[in-house]
Formats: sequence, C-alpha cells, structure tokens
Amino acid sequence: MPRYKLTLEYDGGPFVGWQRQENGPSIQAALEQAAFKYCGEQVTAAAAGRTDAGVHALGQVAHLDLARGDPAERVQAALNFHLKPDPVAVIDAVMVPDDFHARFSCREREYRYVIANRRAPLVLARERAWWVPVPLNEDDMHRAAQLLVGQHDFTSFRAIECQAASPVKTLEMLNVTREGDEIHIAARAQSFLHHQVRNIVGTLRLVGEGKWSDNDLIAALNARDRSAAGLTAPPDGLYFVAARY
Amino acid sequence: MPRYKLTLEYDGGPFVGWQRQENGPSIQAALEQAAFKYCGEQVTAAAAGRTDAGVHALGQVAHLDLARGDPAERVQAALNFHLKPDPVAVIDAVMVPDDFHARFSCREREYRYVIANRRAPLVLARERAWWVPVPLNEDDMHRAAQLLVGQHDFTSFRAIECQAASPVKTLEMLNVTREGDEIHIAARAQSFLHHQVRNIVGTLRLVGEGKWSDNDLIAALNARDRSAAGLTAPPDGLYFVAARY
Repeated sequence: MPRYKLTLEYDGGPFVGWQRQENGPSIQAALEQAAFKYCGEQVTAAAAGRTDAGVHALGQVAHLDLARGDPAERVQAALNFHLKPDPVAVIDAVMVPDDFHARFSCREREYRYVIANRRAPLVLARERAWWVPVPLNEDDMHRAAQLLVGQHDFTSFRAIECQAASPVKTLEMLNVTREGDEIHIAARAQSFLHHQVRNIVGTLRLVGEGKWSDNDLIAALNARDRSAAGLTAPPDGLYFVAARY
Repeated sequence: MPRYKLTLEYDGGPFVGWQRQENGPSIQAALEQAAFKYCGEQVTAAAAGRTDAGVHALGQVAHLDLARGDPAERVQAALNFHLKPDPVAVIDAVMVPDDFHARFSCREREYRYVIANRRAPLVLARERAWWVPVPLNEDDMHRAAQLLVGQHDFTSFRAIECQAASPVKTLEMLNVTREGDEIHIAARAQSFLHHQVRNIVGTLRLVGEGKWSDNDLIAALNARDRSAAGLTAPPDGLYFVAARY
C-alpha cells in the first residue's frame, strides 16, 4: 500500500499533543480525520516526535498509508483542504518505500526552544515563546549547555512519567544563541526523554539568571534525581524542527 | 504636564485600527483606558501611524501626558499591567519634552509587509502574513519596486477615502527580500497615503507572478488612477516597524 512521508507544521496550542487521546483533540486525530474525509480510508499515522500539549512543530514528520495511491502533491493538497480550520498544515509530502517508519526509522530529531527575554509582556509571540522578563546571559547559558552535550544519564531532566527504557541519551548538540530579544536553544539527538528539552531549558534559565554556576549544573546532572534540576519550561516555547532519516 | 513617548507592539487582529471609533475596540482606546485604570486620568493618545484594522505594530510610537509624573519605567509597567488581556504591549517608555508630538514631530515612518510564499496554508503565521501560494520572484519585485522610489504622484496607490492634502509623496526606500518562504517588503517615507503600502504590495505581487512587466508598473503609476494598479493586499501582513524623530 502506498506510504506517504508528510512534513507537518502545527500550532500545538489547541491540542492535547501529537498522540490520539480520549481527553481532547490531537494532531494525530486531526490528520487521520483529514485522510478519512479525503478518501474514506481509516488510517493510523505515526510521527517522529510525540509532542506534548501546547508544543508546536515547524517540521514534524509523520507517515500514513493510503490505498488510493494518489500522487504526493495531490495528497498534500487534499489533506490541507480537509485539515481546515485546524492549525495543522502539510508543508511537504513524498511517497516513500514500505519500510520507512516516521518514528522507528528516525536517526535524529531536532527541537528549538524560544525564550522571549524582555520586560514587556508578549503580544505577537504570545503562546509562541516563554516570556522571561529578567535578563538572561545567553553566553553563560551556552557554555553551561556544553556540559550536557554527549552521552549522559539524564534522569535529572526526565519527566517522572517517562516511559523510555533507559535514562541514558546522547545529546548531539545544545546551542544557545540570541537574536534580539529572543534566546533560541537548539537541541539535537537521536531521541529524547519525556520533557527532556523543557527540563533542560528550565535549568539553563537558572544559569542565565546567574543563580546557578556550571558546577551547580554538573551537580544536578550527577544527582540523577529530577528534583535536583530546574523547573519544566512551559510548552509554548518548544518547536519540533526536523527529523532526519 | 509630563509627556511620555511610548513604543508599542500590537496584534492588530482584534482592533478596528489605531484610532478610537464608535464601531469597535481600537488600540488608542485600549491605551487610554489602561492609563485611566492606572492613575484615573483621562488622556488622549496620539500615534505616529494611524494603522488600519488588522494591521500590526512592532514599533508604533505614541505619546500621552500624565499629571501623576511617575518615572517612565513605572509608567511602562503600569500600562502593561492594565492593558492585559488586550494584545498590546508598551515595549519602551521615555519622558520627552512638551513639544514632542508622536504624529507631528515624526520625520520618518517604516512599514514592513510580510508575504508567506508557499503552497501550504499558514498555521504559525496565520493572520501574521499574506498567504500567496503561487511562486513569486522577489528579484523582479525588488527591481520593479525601485521605480516607485523617490517623489511621485501616488494617486494610483491611494485609497479613495484618503484624506491627505496631496497625493505626492516621497518614498525613501522600498526593498524586497526573501527569507526562506517569506518575502519581506520594507517601505520608508516621511509619511504615507492611506493604503499606500498595501496597494503597492498588491501591485508588486503582479510583477512577482510574472503577470506585469516594469513598464506595466510605470504605466499604472503614470495613470494617476486607483483602478490602474493592483488590488489592496490584506492587512494581516502589514507591520508598523518604526518611527524616527
């Protein structure tokens, strides 16, 4: 059956997250419903990143199978038509071999976290960034972030409800940069623990504020205890940027 | 009486425009009401650009007088507190001399127009850009735009209801650039006619699509007739960026 790789952009605000759940609308259900409206097929979509409620995507990757077998451009246009008015768009679609799996074939995932670091409340970036009105030093944050790059036991940055088999992950990149009032934190790994990026960001904020030193961050990592690290940053600032195969 | 120069960011979506009107909420009224809640003074705010319904601001400049005379930082914080939940924020505030006037002292205004040039419908940029799904050539648009720079009779790009004394304006800059899927049109002048930027953008789109040549644009300008130029681009993509004094 023809399989399609879809690249998705979405506003996570109105959703309970990527995954279909009983308690509210999910991006997965929106996409599956659009496929049903388009060609009457009941499909199950899989995605590279099972983003949480409120988390956005610039380049989520999903796949689904459609017996109808239309060209990928046609599938993209039809899904976009039926996704309206949900804030989800298929920004690219290609046909892929049967053995492609959006989640299990994924070799690398990239997230971006956006902090709006300014005194004034957010207006145009409302629900698109984490508003941190106290000044943050992005150079200190970047230097400290490098201590987390590489293979570590990330128990201190893992949600209690995380279902991963092991807390050991390899962070390939963790870059902190500033663009005007915005601080961008780019994180890349083969896979992440539940809330890992948001817990890291909540902790790097302490460094950026000057409340924590590099040694405090190392101590938190080594504690292997969630309560040793900072708070979980809100979902509003988190974007699934790309998946590589 | 102490006068404050305020730099404002706003989402124009829910407003009838800058100016107080009978038929709906305006940014001016939101600001004046915030001032009243803050210190019980009934003030009249003036702005550099009287933006239309749906037009946004990254750096609108307004002024108002407050007898209470608090330090500018305090005024900024108090106005931001009382502006909630309206999507308006004071991003900067300074005390200025009595003869400063946000509108009449302004020497230069800058607008940006954002076109989202991609096949997929807008999600994160919904109501923040003009969605143009057909491919546009930004180099052609930029070259043509240079024909409008300088002093011209802009009758062809002026809204019928425009109240300016003369249709002759001097466009200091009109730059078209692309950043990924976005085309940015930056326009700078001492002052603009009503809908001038949106009418220019609607016309440059015709050039970007390859429907119009440079000569067509010159003919439209020389016609001095609104119906000779392109349609008015929607307000969603327009931003008041800065006012210089």
